[in-house]
Amino acid sequence: MPETKSADEIFKEFKEHSITEFFRKNSQMLGYAGKVRSLTTIVHEYVTNNLDACEEAGILPDIEVRVKELSENKYSVYVRDNGPGIPSKHVGKALASVLTGTKFHRYMQQRGQQGIGAGGCTIFALITTGKGIRVRSGTGKESYECDLSIDIKANKPLINNLKPIEQKFRGLEVEGEFGDVKYEKSDHGVYEYIRRTALSNPHASIKLVEPDGNEAIFPRSVNTMPQKPRQIKPHPLGISTSDLLDFARVSQSRKVSSFLEETFARISHDKVKELAGIVKEVDFEKQPKDLTWQDCEKIVNAFKQIKWIAPDLDALSTIGERQVDIAMRNILDPKFTSVVERRPRVFKGGIPFVVEVGIAYGGKAGRVSGDLVSGSILRFANKVPLLFDTGSCAITEAVNGIEWKRYSIARFEEEPVSVLVNVSSVYIPYSGVGKQAIAQEDEIVEEIRLAVQDAGRKLQRFLSGERQRSVQESGYKTIIRYVDQLAADLEEITGKKKEETAKELKSLIEKKYKNLFNEEAAE
Amino acid sequence: MPETKSADEIFKEFKEHSITEFFRKNSQMLGYAGKVRSLTTIVHEYVTNNLDACEEAGILPDIEVRVKELSENKYSVYVRDNGPGIPSKHVGKALASVLTGTKFHRYMQQRGQQGIGAGGCTIFALITTGKGIRVRSGTGKESYECDLSIDIKANKPLINNLKPIEQKFRGLEVEGEFGDVKYEKSDHGVYEYIRRTALSNPHASIKLVEPDGNEAIFPRSVNTMPQKPRQIKPHPLGISTSDLLDFARVSQSRKVSSFLEETFARISHDKVKELAGIVKEVDFEKQPKDLTWQDCEKIVNAFKQIKWIAPDLDALSTIGERQVDIAMRNILDPKFTSVVERRPRVFKGGIPFVVEVGIAYGGKAGRVSGDLVSGSILRFANKVPLLFDTGSCAITEAVNGIEWKRYSIARFEEEPVSVLVNVSSVYIPYSGVGKQAIAQEDEIVEEIRLAVQDAGRKLQRFLSGERQRSVQESGYKTIIRYVDQLAADLEEITGKKKEETAKELKSLIEKKYKNLFNEEAAE
Repeated sequence: MPETKSADEIFKEFKEHSITEFFRKNSQMLGYAGKVRSLTTIVHEYVTNNLDACEEAGILPDIEVRVKELSENKYSVYVRDNGPGIPSKHVGKALASVLTGTKFHRYMQQRGQQGIGAGGCTIFALITTGKGIRVRSGTGKESYECDLSIDIKANKPLINNLKPIEQKFRGLEVEGEFGDVKYEKSDHGVYEYIRRTALSNPHASIKLVEPDGNEAIFPRSVNTMPQKPRQIKPHPLGISTSDLLDFARVSQSRKVSSFLEETFARISHDKVKELAGIVKEVDFEKQPKDLTWQDCEKIVNAFKQIKWIAPDLDALSTIGERQVDIAMRNILDPKFTSVVERRPRVFKGGIPFVVEVGIAYGGKAGRVSGDLVSGSILRFANKVPLLFDTGSCAITEAVNGIEWKRYSIARFEEEPVSVLVNVSSVYIPYSGVGKQAIAQEDEIVEEIRLAVQDAGRKLQRFLSGERQRSVQESGYKTIIRYVDQLAADLEEITGKKKEETAKELKSLIEKKYKNLFNEEAAE
Repeated sequence: MPETKSADEIFKEFKEHSITEFFRKNSQMLGYAGKVRSLTTIVHEYVTNNLDACEEAGILPDIEVRVKELSENKYSVYVRDNGPGIPSKHVGKALASVLTGTKFHRYMQQRGQQGIGAGGCTIFALITTGKGIRVRSGTGKESYECDLSIDIKANKPLINNLKPIEQKFRGLEVEGEFGDVKYEKSDHGVYEYIRRTALSNPHASIKLVEPDGNEAIFPRSVNTMPQKPRQIKPHPLGISTSDLLDFARVSQSRKVSSFLEETFARISHDKVKELAGIVKEVDFEKQPKDLTWQDCEKIVNAFKQIKWIAPDLDALSTIGERQVDIAMRNILDPKFTSVVERRPRVFKGGIPFVVEVGIAYGGKAGRVSGDLVSGSILRFANKVPLLFDTGSCAITEAVNGIEWKRYSIARFEEEPVSVLVNVSSVYIPYSGVGKQAIAQEDEIVEEIRLAVQDAGRKLQRFLSGERQRSVQESGYKTIIRYVDQLAADLEEITGKKKEETAKELKSLIEKKYKNLFNEEAAE
């Protein structure tokens, strides 16, 4: 038996470390694993911030991304938008620290929600090239440029060479050099990421300058801003005891009754009375801060016994049925599309979400590799394309769980079918800090499944129609082949002119196959 | 066009938040997604800490886990070990805060490495039941008990009712109540987790008391401690520029030359000379803190041009070829096993790792569901079973990438084959904070692939032997069936007694099929 070691000896090494140190050591958790993926992650973090900022400011986004190769596995990335800009006093924390930002505390649909992404890019620049990032920004009021770096041990931004710029403008420009990255035109590369972003954000104009100098331009296809996301109150359905207690502790309301009305959506004066009727043990006149865990548990249970109006749809911004349809037709040139936008629902925490699904069949739908075609899934969360961690995503689980045979798809793995799923919510429960997969929450998986089934039924009708038509068509062709012979034979027997008989026979046959011809004409 | 909003308005909401707030809101990132998985995550966090503590202290672990159902989806979890205990002055930070601990800064193979797990359990207890956890611990010197909670906004432990216990003992007992969890005897449940932990930790004795009162006992099968993990110096191969610069900044060495010798493994006086010969631009006599990014970049490039001794194997503790074989035979009762332990290798950051693989075929190997059997993968990292996030794991990627036909497995999805893979390292690059999948680093995926191929070749020889033998066997049986008839026919022709002829013929045939009989006899 080896020598034993005491607790005191072991705990001599006890230390604390900062969140930036943690992510410096575990940058793969932010999406920096693999050269191609790392480059996509950088572009993804900046572009989602651009889109969020423009959306919140009410500006139609013009975004430019330039990727340049500096040496092997070393690239510069430049991203520019026409958004509201960042005030200089916030720029350090916004782009060069983590767990800071405007998004974490809000109940509002945004692409970013963690306050980690942009700071993560700066960490990655530092650990792969030793250099921070360069920023230029204008807010309309002030214009400036500066260099940003991070004090990793303290999670504090370091701002250098901050100086005003004469030129008045609005927007943000960020430029950095990154090592351990690679530009590749694959399914996981920057080009595909931008292409899918354009697909799900038709109000944005995006220009990508590739390392070889090629300019890929994705023009704006609609000139209206999407439904503007609003901050909302949480819906009582699904609120946890812990959430309720937390809200109560910071509430300014005088009484539990007014606290409930003011804090949550859909709680009217009448609903408070109904709740008080169920939870007789809790005094609704006392101060919210006096609510105990037990009180909150009882109120939360009462929430579940009452009928509620569904959460506010307007707070959620979808791509939109028409846009999904146009986008799929433009890109996949399919024979058939079926788009479904479900009504919003709630998952735990009173968080509303909405699922939209598009199915495209035929044409360039599906994933082609060599001679083989297979079904493909295009995943989006709050209109942001998800390219990685496919296996652990709620969308993948739901789509793979579909009995595709019911929808006339013999094997999903072998048919030219693309399934686009976008989940929109004021809070997407990502499975990891890298935000590439949606956690497999039962309520979300189930809702996606229902949406795909809805869209699948239309596909089924189309495909069974297609098949019936193809059976009929071959029947028609077989019969028509014998018409002339039959007419000639009949002339011998009856003396009736074969041309006449043939015409009559054809007319009879065509009447029988009427549906076939009508549908073809309608196409 | 909607009204626009200025940067100042948007940034009014700019806030900072703590890492505990982040994980409180995103507990799914710690593995708390789904009721069954959440319960397994709790047991996983405590048991890995138990095993690490015992291993470091040199104690053969005796662990007891009790899970009790309190009400629907609410359970208590009690975990006890005979480890070194935790000194009371460290217990708060060890169990009720995150990013604190003894493990993060060390280059040493341990199950835990983040300083998040146990604190995460306390966060999860708080958000699902409002209660913290209860602790009893003895270090040999002191014995005490206390209640632990967390100030979520500040990431600070809250210690209550701390009082000494008379009884002298060594070990740690933790008990907590958790909501939103469920005990289920599935592939992802606590029972399976403990079973696999016992499989990969034969030196541990583990008792699990299930909610129905059933006691599952996994006795110790070896009485020796595994190779004790040691803290090691990083290997120069693969060290990044950023790592080198970081080490240089905190170095106490007087010169670059001594800094290199003292900080890294395998750098001798001669190797320093060799390096200095390659990197002529860098002054090896200057102080380490004067090294620039460019200097470090040149030194790191020089590292790659030199031949190095492989990293220190002794620092890595594997399950061991014999133990893997015994474990697979005990549990799967297979017809055949093939175990491979590869030599250690290095992946980026100078981090040594080693892969061991066991393949079991036939018997209870594979995954049975109904009448169907399919190949199964048993994933381990530092001997800890990985039950979740299968799709995004380097092990899954490597095993699925194998051309199984080459190894006489027509379709991995349809054969009774189990592939066990354990990756041991002083640093496992987990893809997420929940530590359920290994990031798909090229070097690790490739090494797993090579190990599976090694083991696969033995499987192939066995299976093709099996098949050849089965062909031969049926040939033998066919021929032997005709011997008596032939002998009788020959008697009519030659007059030679048919018994004699039959005997001679059989002996001839047996000589031809010698291999078959020898192999059978040897079994």
